[in-house]
Amino acid sequence: MSTLPSKQLETFDNAVPERDYTIHIETPEFTCLCPKTGQPDFATIKIDYVPDLKCVELKSLKLYFWSYREEGGFHEKLTNQILTDLVAATAPRFMRVTGIFNVRGGVYTNVVAEYRKEGWVAPTPVHLP
Amino acid sequence: MSTLPSKQLETFDNAVPERDYTIHIETPEFTCLCPKTGQPDFATIKIDYVPDLKCVELKSLKLYFWSYREEGGFHEKLTNQILTDLVAATAPRFMRVTGIFNVRGGVYTNVVAEYRKEGWVAPTPVHLP
Amino acid sequence: MSTLPSKQLETFDNAVPERDYTIHIETPEFTCLCPKTGQPDFATIKIDYVPDLKCVELKSLKLYFWSYREEGGFHEKLTNQILTDLVAATAPRFMRVTGIFNVRGGVYTNVVAEYRKEGWVAPTPVHLP
Amino acid sequence: MSTLPSKQLETFDNAVPERDYTIHIETPEFTCLCPKTGQPDFATIKIDYVPDLKCVELKSLKLYFWSYREEGGFHEKLTNQILTDLVAATAPRFMRVTGIFNVRGGVYTNVVAEYRKEGWVAPTPVHLP
Amino acid sequence: MSTLPSKQLETFDNAVPERDYTIHIETPEFTCLCPKTGQPDFATIKIDYVPDLKCVELKSLKLYFWSYREEGGFHEKLTNQILTDLVAATAPRFMRVTGIFNVRGGVYTNVVAEYRKEGWVAPTPVHLP
Amino acid sequence: MSTLPSKQLETFDNAVPERDYTIHIETPEFTCLCPKTGQPDFATIKIDYVPDLKCVELKSLKLYFWSYREEGGFHEKLTNQILTDLVAATAPRFMRVTGIFNVRGGVYTNVVAEYRKEGWVAPTPVHLP
Amino acid sequence: MSTLPSKQLETFDNAVPERDYTIHIETPEFTCLCPKTGQPDFATIKIDYVPDLKCVELKSLKLYFWSYREEGGFHEKLTNQILTDLVAATAPRFMRVTGIFNVRGGVYTNVVAEYRKEGWVAPTPVHLP
Amino acid sequence: MSTLPSKQLETFDNAVPERDYTIHIETPEFTCLCPKTGQPDFATIKIDYVPDLKCVELKSLKLYFWSYREEGGFHEKLTNQILTDLVAATAPRFMRVTGIFNVRGGVYTNVVAEYRKEGWVAPTPVHLP
Amino acid sequence: MSTLPSKQLETFDNAVPERDYTIHIETPEFTCLCPKTGQPDFATIKIDYVPDLKCVELKSLKLYFWSYREEGGFHEKLTNQILTDLVAATAPRFMRVTGIFNVRGGVYTNVVAEYRKEGWVAPTPVHLP
Amino acid sequence: MSTLPSKQLETFDNAVPERDYTIHIETPEFTCLCPKTGQPDFATIKIDYVPDLKCVELKSLKLYFWSYREEGGFHEKLTNQILTDLVAATAPRFMRVTGIFNVRGGVYTNVVAEYRKEGWVAPTPVHLP
Ligand SMILES: [Ca+2]
Ligand SMILES: [Ca+2]
Ligand SMILES: [Ca+2]
Ligand SMILES: [Ca+2]
Ligand SMILES: [Ca+2]
Ligand SMILES: [Ca+2]
Ligand SMILES: [Ca+2]
Ligand SMILES: [Ca+2]
Ligand SMILES: [Ca+2]
Ligand SMILES: [Ca+2]
Ligand SMILES: [Ca+2]
Ligand SMILES: [Ca+2]
Ligand SMILES: [Ca+2]
Ligand SMILES: [Ca+2]
Ligand SMILES: [Ca+2]
Ligand SMILES: [Ca+2]
Repeated sequence: MSTLPSKQLETFDNAVPERDYTIHIETPEFTCLCPKTGQPDFATIKIDYVPDLKCVELKSLKLYFWSYREEGGFHEKLTNQILTDLVAATAPRFMRVTGIFNVRGGVYTNVVAEYRKEGWVAPTPVHLP
Repeated sequence: MSTLPSKQLETFDNAVPERDYTIHIETPEFTCLCPKTGQPDFATIKIDYVPDLKCVELKSLKLYFWSYREEGGFHEKLTNQILTDLVAATAPRFMRVTGIFNVRGGVYTNVVAEYRKEGWVAPTPVHLP
Repeated sequence: MSTLPSKQLETFDNAVPERDYTIHIETPEFTCLCPKTGQPDFATIKIDYVPDLKCVELKSLKLYFWSYREEGGFHEKLTNQILTDLVAATAPRFMRVTGIFNVRGGVYTNVVAEYRKEGWVAPTPVHLP
Repeated sequence: MSTLPSKQLETFDNAVPERDYTIHIETPEFTCLCPKTGQPDFATIKIDYVPDLKCVELKSLKLYFWSYREEGGFHEKLTNQILTDLVAATAPRFMRVTGIFNVRGGVYTNVVAEYRKEGWVAPTPVHLP
Repeated sequence: MSTLPSKQLETFDNAVPERDYTIHIETPEFTCLCPKTGQPDFATIKIDYVPDLKCVELKSLKLYFWSYREEGGFHEKLTNQILTDLVAATAPRFMRVTGIFNVRGGVYTNVVAEYRKEGWVAPTPVHLP
Repeated sequence: MSTLPSKQLETFDNAVPERDYTIHIETPEFTCLCPKTGQPDFATIKIDYVPDLKCVELKSLKLYFWSYREEGGFHEKLTNQILTDLVAATAPRFMRVTGIFNVRGGVYTNVVAEYRKEGWVAPTPVHLP
Repeated sequence: MSTLPSKQLETFDNAVPERDYTIHIETPEFTCLCPKTGQPDFATIKIDYVPDLKCVELKSLKLYFWSYREEGGFHEKLTNQILTDLVAATAPRFMRVTGIFNVRGGVYTNVVAEYRKEGWVAPTPVHLP
Repeated sequence: MSTLPSKQLETFDNAVPERDYTIHIETPEFTCLCPKTGQPDFATIKIDYVPDLKCVELKSLKLYFWSYREEGGFHEKLTNQILTDLVAATAPRFMRVTGIFNVRGGVYTNVVAEYRKEGWVAPTPVHLP
Repeated sequence: MSTLPSKQLETFDNAVPERDYTIHIETPEFTCLCPKTGQPDFATIKIDYVPDLKCVELKSLKLYFWSYREEGGFHEKLTNQILTDLVAATAPRFMRVTGIFNVRGGVYTNVVAEYRKEGWVAPTPVHLP
Repeated sequence: MSTLPSKQLETFDNAVPERDYTIHIETPEFTCLCPKTGQPDFATIKIDYVPDLKCVELKSLKLYFWSYREEGGFHEKLTNQILTDLVAATAPRFMRVTGIFNVRGGVYTNVVAEYRKEGWVAPTPVHLP
């Protein structure tokens, strides 16, 4: 695998496809360019998903995030684009992408987008006391 | 866009209207005048919404908040007014406005108001373990 | 309005009776006397309510809290009494009173009591991701 | 009431039996002996309950906790025993006992046990925004 | 019981099988080897379960965790393996295993897997206010 | 000793007068009246001292704090008065009194006053790495 | 005293001029205008001082802070100006003013300025262990 | 070594007597009896020392702390006694014992006592920026 | 001033050169490239300085930080380079630059470098109690 | 460089030997074996140093820490050994090693050891207000 920024997301086989289980991934090291001013923007990106047959490979995910370093993008569009790309690569049962953008002009902004595979129903959550 | 305080909220087209997704906005930089004493009041304002066809533009939102700097307003009325204005500007599927006002006389006050578009049903939340 | 302690709770008209919205009030400045020892007790009092036609006026609420300064009262009874008095004064759709009492003898105690107006149904909560 | 450790839990009449309300009690000052090594064990004990006709008296509860000072007990059994004793003494509508035991060998352990009176149904919770 | 690393999980009889209650176990002292680089990986492991007839014995659990010290394993597979082994040893009503892995390359990863015994239904949770 | 508020501070003999050592005392349960408005004021009071021949007895200190409950006093004067009274009662080698007053009108105020016995020199502090 | 913004700082006599003691004042409610853009700026202002013959009156200090609401000012100049004005009004033995300005463009800025009365020497600090 | 409570502190040879270095020890698991009421008291005990020829053995220290479980003792005396005993056992170059006692009657108390070997001078501390 | 990355640091005249005062600047938005792998590195950069005749202009400082976005640099060299450049631009009385680099391979690294103008002596610090 | 555990510490030339500056390194990923029980021990290790002509290379430092994975060692000896090895490899002007060991038997232990090159004097620290 190359160590250059890349839009190519690698996957590996889910070792436990018989279970609905959760993978949480989080990086505070996301940066892109502001589409209005061209100046750097910074964010924390969180991914929560229930894999189906494929899991996203973490090194390629890091190169994928890197690929935004020289790209502009509004917060809303960018967060949805990451979701769309990860869904295309992994075809998960469920996925949520959260973008927590650094404060600008005294205003904090987060964007949260979700995908659910058609027909998939989340297991009834067990809330232990 | 002018850099004077303004009640005029600008919007832009929602790039992903096919999805119900969430935008969180928060500013600790809200100030108005106390309607009783005329002295400055301070608050943090939070907005959580699911856009329909339009998203609120952040720079105009900042000018909108600025427009309260010389206005008086009770906490309850003011928080509801911000909701009413943002709903009028963006016609969202759902919106919640929270006003967290600074302590006065040893008493802390928050106000939370919500709008739901008629016929809109929130997606069943997925609580991942 | 007098600046003496008073059991008289003042109200003002709810400016937005057409909406179910929430008002949170909290004070860390509550003190009464222990009914067993006569010594001072201290607590934080929280009020969360959905107003109907009337809202409680904050200055009179402060004088109301002050009125407990020379009164004894068990934690359970006192928290319920505050709820009863505030319901009598404001006839809300919903109200919750929480008393968080300072540690005594190594033991921390909280009491939480709620009132719901007959026939009032809480709006289905929207849990945004 | 004696100031010696005692298994005897005292109660007083619930002043507001017409309401389902909550009493939270917490002490970081619980200690017993490890049933394997005989050495001291330490825990925080939390009690959350909805009283029916009787409330537990706090001073006797403190003497009750003290009664474990020279007793051995596995975490699971001990937490359930406290629940059983408190239910026997107060016949509550609902009670939860949580034991948060100090780390041993790099491992943290909590145990949570609940009792519900037959036929009692918890009020539908109101989640205010 | 030996003090060598061991895959053998010991159990003891659940003293209160008539109740659904919760046992939380957590250790910040888990280490294995990265299957790609062979270098040490570190994690916090959490276990939440409702025992049926058997509880896991904590000393043997510690030796079990120790047994991973010289083994490689991907985060997803390893977390699921711990769940599978603990379910085989204790046949619980419900069990959740959470692996919180140390940051690598600026990326944080958690994995959460659950088991529910067939036919077991979690008690309706009581949410006290 | 009576359980009424009292300006009378009790002491006991310092058991280790041959050592300069430190006693820290802190209470979040101080309340007095505002000398301007007559309304309750609240504070945390901290005392740090090096005893000479006498230590302050904690129960009488609590009654002493209680004696301010119906008295007015400016923050500066009141903090200095507590120092003067405690020095008169205990004749310490060193004493510091800190008053941390609750926010009023958006302004937080602390006052810190110290006493040093003539001729007493603080031991050179040892700053361990 | 008027309740309009005012540059006039009121003082009262120091009740304990024979002692060097410390008064800490802090407000999170400072706002002015950015001298470049004309848009609101926000800051927390801290004052630490050793009074000589006069103390600053808190209500007039609040009106003084209010007087900046419609004024522009660079962070460095503004913090030094507040120090200069407070020194002119109170002639203290020592004073420190700290301005903690809200983040702008991803950059946080604080400014700290001090005044020492000629000939005044700070008491040797006592560092209790 | 026995696993019964014991006043006997064991030591081992300092492996690096040629260096002044620091050992910090802390336990939140200290309990004794109140000399006035006979009821349990709880504390966190901290020890900071520079060993000379001997270091205190941790298992015997734990048995030593255990030996206070059935003993009464005022906070001031007890903290100084622990220091005296540890100095007698280890003859350190420097030692500090801190007792942080649980809140009683709304009052928090700490006691800090130090020992310095005659002729020992603490190395000039290096404060790295 | 251009909105492109730039090594050119702009300054403005210190408005209060007669005082030694402190300016703290901090940004969590610093990113460069790892000189070994070419992959992005992230850091928080702090600057603390006592200006002489010139202060650094914040917008140009932001462009300066931006100029590292496509450059490689070891942590130690890079932090020292920022100090050297800022000293060259502003000729301060004192300056400290701190680089807090994101964790890599489980290891956290900070670098702190200082400059002092010849002949400048820091004012004796006043430690208020 | 190999990716096997190794006692061999690599260095690189200090790029700025003309300045006394500080490098802080910290890892929460240290594990060794208890010399008494043979079971795993865990610690956080911190290193603070002022380099002279050589800096420690981070990848080799990681392999060095790894080399303790199968070794036993008392806390005091081990922390001093790390200092001795790092001083031998880098000959710094100053170095401090801190070992923060995980709680065992309810007792927390830290060890801090320092080295100063003969003749080196730490620069007078500048404490900015
Ligand atoms: Ca961030
Ligand atoms: Ca932004
Ligand atoms: Ca605020
Ligand atoms: Ca308010
Ligand atoms: Ca209480
Ligand atoms: Ca504890
Ligand atoms: Ca345990
Ligand atoms: Ca960890
Ligand atoms: Ca990992
Ligand atoms: Ca308080
Ligand atoms: Ca005040
Ligand atoms: Ca700013
Ligand atoms: Ca105590
Ligand atoms: Ca960071
Ligand atoms: Ca790094
Ligand atoms: Ca240890």
